[in-house]
Amino acid sequence: MQDALLALQRYWTERGCMIMQPFNTEVGAGTANPATMLRVLGPEPWHVGYVEPSVRPDDARYGENPNRLQTHTQFQVILKPDPGNPQELYLGSLEALGVDTKAHDIRFVEDNWASPALGAWGLGWEVWLDGLEISQFTYFQQAGGLVLDPVSVEITYGIERIIMALQGVDHFKDIRYSDGVTYGEIFGQSEYEMSRYYLDDADIEATHRMFDTSAAEADRLLDLRLPSPAYVHVLKCSHMFNVLDARGAISTTERAKAFGQMRSLTRRVAQLWAERREELGHPLGVVEASPAATAGDLPEVSEPATLLFEIGLEELPHADVSTMAASVRDSLEAKLAGTRLAHGEISAFATPRRIIVQVADVAAAEPDAERTVRGPKTAAAFGPDGAPTKAAQGFAGKHGVAPEDLSRVDVDGTEHVAVVRTEEGRTAPVVLSELLAQLVGELRADKNMRWRDPKLSFSRPVRWLLALLGDTPLPVAVSSLVSGTTTRVHRTAAEPVVEVASADGYLEFLAGHGIVADAAERRRSIVGAATELAAGVGGTVDFAGEAGLVDEVTNLVESPTPILGGFAERYLELPEQILTTVMRKHQRYLPVRGENGLLPHFITVANGDCDTDLVREGNESVLRARYEDAAFFWRADLKRKPEELREGLHKLTFEERLGSMADRADRIARVAVALGDATGLSEADRATVARAGELAKFDLASQMVVELSGLAGTMAREYAVRAGETPAVATALAEMEQPRGAGDALPESNPGAVLALADRFDLLASLFAIGANPTGSSDPFGLRRAAGGAVTILRATPAAAAVTLRAGLEAARAQVAEQGTTLSDEALAEAHEFIVRRYEQQLLDAGHEHRLVQAVLPLADTPVLADAALAELEKRIHDEDFGALVAVIQRARRIVPEGTVAAYDADVLTDQAERDLHAVVAEVAQQLSGTTTLAEFTATAGRLVDPVNRFFDEVMVMAEDADLRQARLGLLATITDLADEVLDWRAL
Amino acid sequence: MQDALLALQRYWTERGCMIMQPFNTEVGAGTANPATMLRVLGPEPWHVGYVEPSVRPDDARYGENPNRLQTHTQFQVILKPDPGNPQELYLGSLEALGVDTKAHDIRFVEDNWASPALGAWGLGWEVWLDGLEISQFTYFQQAGGLVLDPVSVEITYGIERIIMALQGVDHFKDIRYSDGVTYGEIFGQSEYEMSRYYLDDADIEATHRMFDTSAAEADRLLDLRLPSPAYVHVLKCSHMFNVLDARGAISTTERAKAFGQMRSLTRRVAQLWAERREELGHPLGVVEASPAATAGDLPEVSEPATLLFEIGLEELPHADVSTMAASVRDSLEAKLAGTRLAHGEISAFATPRRIIVQVADVAAAEPDAERTVRGPKTAAAFGPDGAPTKAAQGFAGKHGVAPEDLSRVDVDGTEHVAVVRTEEGRTAPVVLSELLAQLVGELRADKNMRWRDPKLSFSRPVRWLLALLGDTPLPVAVSSLVSGTTTRVHRTAAEPVVEVASADGYLEFLAGHGIVADAAERRRSIVGAATELAAGVGGTVDFAGEAGLVDEVTNLVESPTPILGGFAERYLELPEQILTTVMRKHQRYLPVRGENGLLPHFITVANGDCDTDLVREGNESVLRARYEDAAFFWRADLKRKPEELREGLHKLTFEERLGSMADRADRIARVAVALGDATGLSEADRATVARAGELAKFDLASQMVVELSGLAGTMAREYAVRAGETPAVATALAEMEQPRGAGDALPESNPGAVLALADRFDLLASLFAIGANPTGSSDPFGLRRAAGGAVTILRATPAAAAVTLRAGLEAARAQVAEQGTTLSDEALAEAHEFIVRRYEQQLLDAGHEHRLVQAVLPLADTPVLADAALAELEKRIHDEDFGALVAVIQRARRIVPEGTVAAYDADVLTDQAERDLHAVVAEVAQQLSGTTTLAEFTATAGRLVDPVNRFFDEVMVMAEDADLRQARLGLLATITDLADEVLDWRAL
Repeated sequence: MQDALLALQRYWTERGCMIMQPFNTEVGAGTANPATMLRVLGPEPWHVGYVEPSVRPDDARYGENPNRLQTHTQFQVILKPDPGNPQELYLGSLEALGVDTKAHDIRFVEDNWASPALGAWGLGWEVWLDGLEISQFTYFQQAGGLVLDPVSVEITYGIERIIMALQGVDHFKDIRYSDGVTYGEIFGQSEYEMSRYYLDDADIEATHRMFDTSAAEADRLLDLRLPSPAYVHVLKCSHMFNVLDARGAISTTERAKAFGQMRSLTRRVAQLWAERREELGHPLGVVEASPAATAGDLPEVSEPATLLFEIGLEELPHADVSTMAASVRDSLEAKLAGTRLAHGEISAFATPRRIIVQVADVAAAEPDAERTVRGPKTAAAFGPDGAPTKAAQGFAGKHGVAPEDLSRVDVDGTEHVAVVRTEEGRTAPVVLSELLAQLVGELRADKNMRWRDPKLSFSRPVRWLLALLGDTPLPVAVSSLVSGTTTRVHRTAAEPVVEVASADGYLEFLAGHGIVADAAERRRSIVGAATELAAGVGGTVDFAGEAGLVDEVTNLVESPTPILGGFAERYLELPEQILTTVMRKHQRYLPVRGENGLLPHFITVANGDCDTDLVREGNESVLRARYEDAAFFWRADLKRKPEELREGLHKLTFEERLGSMADRADRIARVAVALGDATGLSEADRATVARAGELAKFDLASQMVVELSGLAGTMAREYAVRAGETPAVATALAEMEQPRGAGDALPESNPGAVLALADRFDLLASLFAIGANPTGSSDPFGLRRAAGGAVTILRATPAAAAVTLRAGLEAARAQVAEQGTTLSDEALAEAHEFIVRRYEQQLLDAGHEHRLVQAVLPLADTPVLADAALAELEKRIHDEDFGALVAVIQRARRIVPEGTVAAYDADVLTDQAERDLHAVVAEVAQQLSGTTTLAEFTATAGRLVDPVNRFFDEVMVMAEDADLRQARLGLLATITDLADEVLDWRAL
Repeated sequence: MQDALLALQRYWTERGCMIMQPFNTEVGAGTANPATMLRVLGPEPWHVGYVEPSVRPDDARYGENPNRLQTHTQFQVILKPDPGNPQELYLGSLEALGVDTKAHDIRFVEDNWASPALGAWGLGWEVWLDGLEISQFTYFQQAGGLVLDPVSVEITYGIERIIMALQGVDHFKDIRYSDGVTYGEIFGQSEYEMSRYYLDDADIEATHRMFDTSAAEADRLLDLRLPSPAYVHVLKCSHMFNVLDARGAISTTERAKAFGQMRSLTRRVAQLWAERREELGHPLGVVEASPAATAGDLPEVSEPATLLFEIGLEELPHADVSTMAASVRDSLEAKLAGTRLAHGEISAFATPRRIIVQVADVAAAEPDAERTVRGPKTAAAFGPDGAPTKAAQGFAGKHGVAPEDLSRVDVDGTEHVAVVRTEEGRTAPVVLSELLAQLVGELRADKNMRWRDPKLSFSRPVRWLLALLGDTPLPVAVSSLVSGTTTRVHRTAAEPVVEVASADGYLEFLAGHGIVADAAERRRSIVGAATELAAGVGGTVDFAGEAGLVDEVTNLVESPTPILGGFAERYLELPEQILTTVMRKHQRYLPVRGENGLLPHFITVANGDCDTDLVREGNESVLRARYEDAAFFWRADLKRKPEELREGLHKLTFEERLGSMADRADRIARVAVALGDATGLSEADRATVARAGELAKFDLASQMVVELSGLAGTMAREYAVRAGETPAVATALAEMEQPRGAGDALPESNPGAVLALADRFDLLASLFAIGANPTGSSDPFGLRRAAGGAVTILRATPAAAAVTLRAGLEAARAQVAEQGTTLSDEALAEAHEFIVRRYEQQLLDAGHEHRLVQAVLPLADTPVLADAALAELEKRIHDEDFGALVAVIQRARRIVPEGTVAAYDADVLTDQAERDLHAVVAEVAQQLSGTTTLAEFTATAGRLVDPVNRFFDEVMVMAEDADLRQARLGLLATITDLADEVLDWRAL
């Protein structure tokens, strides 16, 4: 292992890096070392490499987990400015470490890094070695809240993982540290003891105190304009925070507060550091901007030809690959349309490393065009003597022709003098050179970054341009880049840079170098090969179910090479969801299924030629390590009964003022019972709710869920079943976590739905009670998701329909109060409004018309009613009869003052029309007594249209007689009140 | 610079070392990293190398000092067990760094390391490269209070210094860190800012709090048996302590308390770590003890021959070199005397690397010897029939001879039977092999250490033995060593190990290899060459004045090569004492003097062949750096008036309860004025005392004295003169610091003496007032030295003779009280007694007879009186008359009960003898009224001898009449009281 560190130091030193030392206070990553965090700021160059023992108290596992250490070793490289070929340099360093990059499958997989606490972000990749993440590779865009210029390239090697892979060992303790001595023999004791400290024994109060002390020191030192010692104290804060976190002593609000403090201190440090460097005159000098490139002379062409334009890139994120071909094609098409250049079909293709456009039959030049410039009317151009007037002389002079050479044009029947000019068509090279340069300059993705180019900004760096018109090189200059006639094929090819002779047949040319430019073809080849591989072991791949994953994999490679791997059958004892979650989310492997479920196989898609056996083994070993982890957690968790795990929730802080996760689970259980009673669940369902409530959220204390939080609920089900709980209880425990987000599956069982509602109402009621409402983009507890989830469940679950939002919040309020926290009426109203807003949003997102949505919102306390009303409304809104009904109700609303009591003395009414109306209203009111739906209302109240209209025609509501006026208004108010029960008619 | 670190890592890796990382919390030295501090404990092997950025807040200089940094870079190597050739390995590493070890003068200069806070110590060297200390090299003997077995070798490289020397730059900022980038460009800002933090801006209260928090955490974690995290907290304590210390916020008592805490925690960590490693079964294995060596067959010799025995060593301290030759010679002589082996002259020689003994004409073997065993008397041996009795038969049988073969011997006139046996002489190899082995096994120096040998212990490791008897190899086996026939010459010689053919002419043989074995010859050669070199620049060396230094230098080398170096004349503007202090103490250079003082030259004595110019330049540059430092301090100090510096004393804590150094200086000033008044100094002297008092100790705040504390007083004088103070004031300021220790010069001026006394009485009074009396070997404030100094001054300074110890303490008590601290009567008595004990010790050390010393101690309150009495006593003690006087006084004392009042009613006396005595006593008493000396007393009281004797002969003191008895006793008590004024007669 030490040889590896020396090899890296040597390699990077030889490439102009300085070697620094690890920082002498605990840091969580090499990034935090001032040699990165401060040096990436400002204009000074900085090329550096160093080892960094990275302390992650949260990863402490007493030395028992094969892949987790409380202190692991990073090797950190910073290249500032970007040298233009950092990926190639990085691959060279792997060779220096003894990695045969030709034999292995090495990939750059999108990974966007952000550290809110450091006010920093960047775009880049995880580097995979046969499926194992061995490095992080990031173009730093911001740090300490400052935009970085120049941008730095950060490469972080995970040394233990690389060494484990190179040495083929399965546990970090077995790493051969040096001759005859293992990592475990040296560091095993300290792993155990430091884990004890971080997880069990650090004094919480003392650690809090040290955090506060360091924060205060940092603040004071910033006021003294001393960024270096201030930053040391920020790092100490950060370590103390991590210790507290690992001890489970940080509540969500404390976390938010501490992050805010650290972020603000870091920003101030960064700002001050940058200022100080400037005051010192930038001792290390200033990075020069890359000079603008200039294109050479443009060629002459005479025949129509194919245009080939390739934008060469560092690995694009798969989502960008999937959109960029079309987007560039469209852009080019639009640009060409703005010229007179004739051309044939435009086609475009994208891989992670290139965007290619081809345009068939591009004319050699634009045709010439005649342009007529109109002058004065002919009548005004020549005097009676036929001699040119001053106006004609002026016009002719301006355009450099003799007055007698002026032409004539007819404009709307009037003749004018005119000058006719021939505008010469530009040659294709002239047109294209400019247009393609614009195309590159305008490239944009969802997230864009800068590298060393002074002007360009894109998803990932643009590294080369290839432009050919037929066989003719076409110079295109954009910012610091200029196009050439070469392309780059696989980095590990014997000749990684190859000359391209002609625009025609370029896809075949690339195919000859093992690159499949067309995504559809890549996908076909993956599906074909994967089907065949799966069949070889008697299985299939569920391509429909895995469509998203197949798309992703298609765009992760240029040359798909599906490889079948296997894993030990014993892992099949683990719940399938664990196995597939790991395969899909972590590894992008396609699961292979047999007739009776999962087979112990997977398919990974490597990029290009490699040593298939080696790559298979590597991937198998990564998966084995992950499954071994999971199996370890599985076994450990199964040793504890759900009740025991449930006890563990007492140790998990939910929120300082709201107690532990156990307190929250208690509340959920009681709210669920209350809601179950209210909805009139069956006896059996109520028993299920009660039992599941007792165990609610117990799996949060399981190791599996601590590691793979996405399996919360799923693991509850699995563990509950194995602990002898009924299937109904197990299902309810799983379903109470659903939906996890918009579009996720919903609880199917009534107990599951009730528990899920209780969960969400508790979250909303408790957090609104303490004023932790979401603000702006900050929603640390996911209250928006919770509110949306509650509404979705209520809309989808008939059995729960009886639960109103208010009733749910009231039930939760009672339990929150039971634990000593008050949800005030105002706060409850706020929470209610908050949920209604989510409902409104759901309706709008679903495409419902805004005014109709507004009309039904008064019913939103019972979302199913509102849904029904909306449906009814949408059905009737263009119906004539309904329109008439709306009209009369609105007519009535307009005249009835706010607050008018819906009562009247019918005997006071005098006119026939009003007496008739009274009779109809009385009948309708009786028919509609009790809650009613829009459909019922419409059907019944339709009878009101004519009498109301007649009433308005014949009766003057605002009679002088007060009693009479009162009665007339009361009559109308009775109608509007009836109507208001079902809709907000004002909105229509 | 980074290349150097990589080169060291590579070098040591190739020699089986593991590479570790710097520790991730601040440490003051690589030693504190657990990779040293904990790994040297216990039996597990450990070979490791690592870089350690070493944080020394106290060395912070805002980046301005060319050689001091708040964080400097160490490279640390631990070899456990000692590989047997660590020095050679180390020299190899210098070669790897690009140091031409043949051309440079590289030396191992005694340096014994101890860290009380770590409970650790070891013996070893500083390594000098042309006079520059570049490494520390230590055989660790103890750590965390545990004895180390096996011993570890610790090598610590000071990287910045080595690099500065290799790159030939004068300021750390100019080090080329990597291509085109200097150290200052990278680290300059952080040096400045961290210096600001450590020296000026760290929050004292917060830092104290963090110290306490970490100490408590360490304690708690030890109780939990977690040594690793506990040690991290001990290191944090240590760093916090260093920060507080640099901030000047640690008082002496706080220092002692903090050290005690850290020492105790470290011991507990060490103990627990060792236990835990044992519990873990020593994962790294256990170091095997070196096997005992066996000598081969002993040779046959037939002729007398010269014995040559050489004990080969790693560099001995010079003091050991100077004693070892004689000590080994004496030991061998005594051992040979215990054998019958005839031999000629024994001579012995020592250099730093060898002790040689030669014995001329060693006989080939011991002569045979006859031994007679006496049996029964002949009379009892044979019966009347001449037949052997049973007794004779038994005796004969026991000795295996026939009774008739028994001899006869005469014992004191009685004849016995006897057996005469011939005891065969052992051969010289048999005798010597055993005896030389013993000699080596018994080697001891003042301080001894262990290395890898299982049994040997000596000042430094014994690495080889050479033993020849004439031309014959003589096997000597001691513990793991066995003698051979080779010796080791200069390590840089072409053949560093050479075969020795014969014992004869060995000194010439060594001389042939450039080694001067005889110290006297080395000294002569140094004196000769140095004289010549000095003469070459018109100067001389004061060999008499520098005798100690010349002796030291003589024993630092095997092959003295004096080299003349120079320094810039401008440094001569600095006070000579600064220049010579640096030369002597730091560099062991001989100053060169001209007629008018120091010349800008020095002589260094290199070891053996080297590139003289290179070595000269190296030494010159070291001296230049040191002088540049001094000149920097000098100029900086001169910018501030003595008064300003005096103000700076407020910032120096003297002792928490006793205030700042300024408070102490105030007290000293006032005590001095009081003592000046009491001793009746002249007006001028009193003015001098007053002015010097105002400035007392101001130079403690000067940078020069902070750096070179030995110049306290000296710098006060220099700065005072330059600030326009009178020479008398300047002298008094210098003299008040004298004597610095036993044997140091004393104040010559009266004001100087008075101030020096005031200084010491204040120290004693104030510290006894707060109970900080010295206990056992702990005397952190140097109270023993202060008391001794006070006594010495009082004894030597006539003008001060009037100051009694009590008066001095009383004067100091008054000023201490003025500042709010009470010196109780008991404490004052203790302080008084403490000073008297130092006086007693001085007298005994000077060889005065114990009983005489005891006799004069009652006068010690005025030491000059006691001195005079002692002198008188020593003159008279063998005088008959004085003896008679002593006898009568003692006779009187014996009879007079304790407490008898020295008064009597003369009229009650009846007998003639007593009345006569009364008359003489009355006269003598009158003559002796007032203080008197022993001389006066003896002269006057001599008249009492006869009357007293007569009185005792004729009068019965214990008369029955009580009044008479009372009067007689009163008469005698009058005599003893007179006598007690001048002596404690009981002691005689």
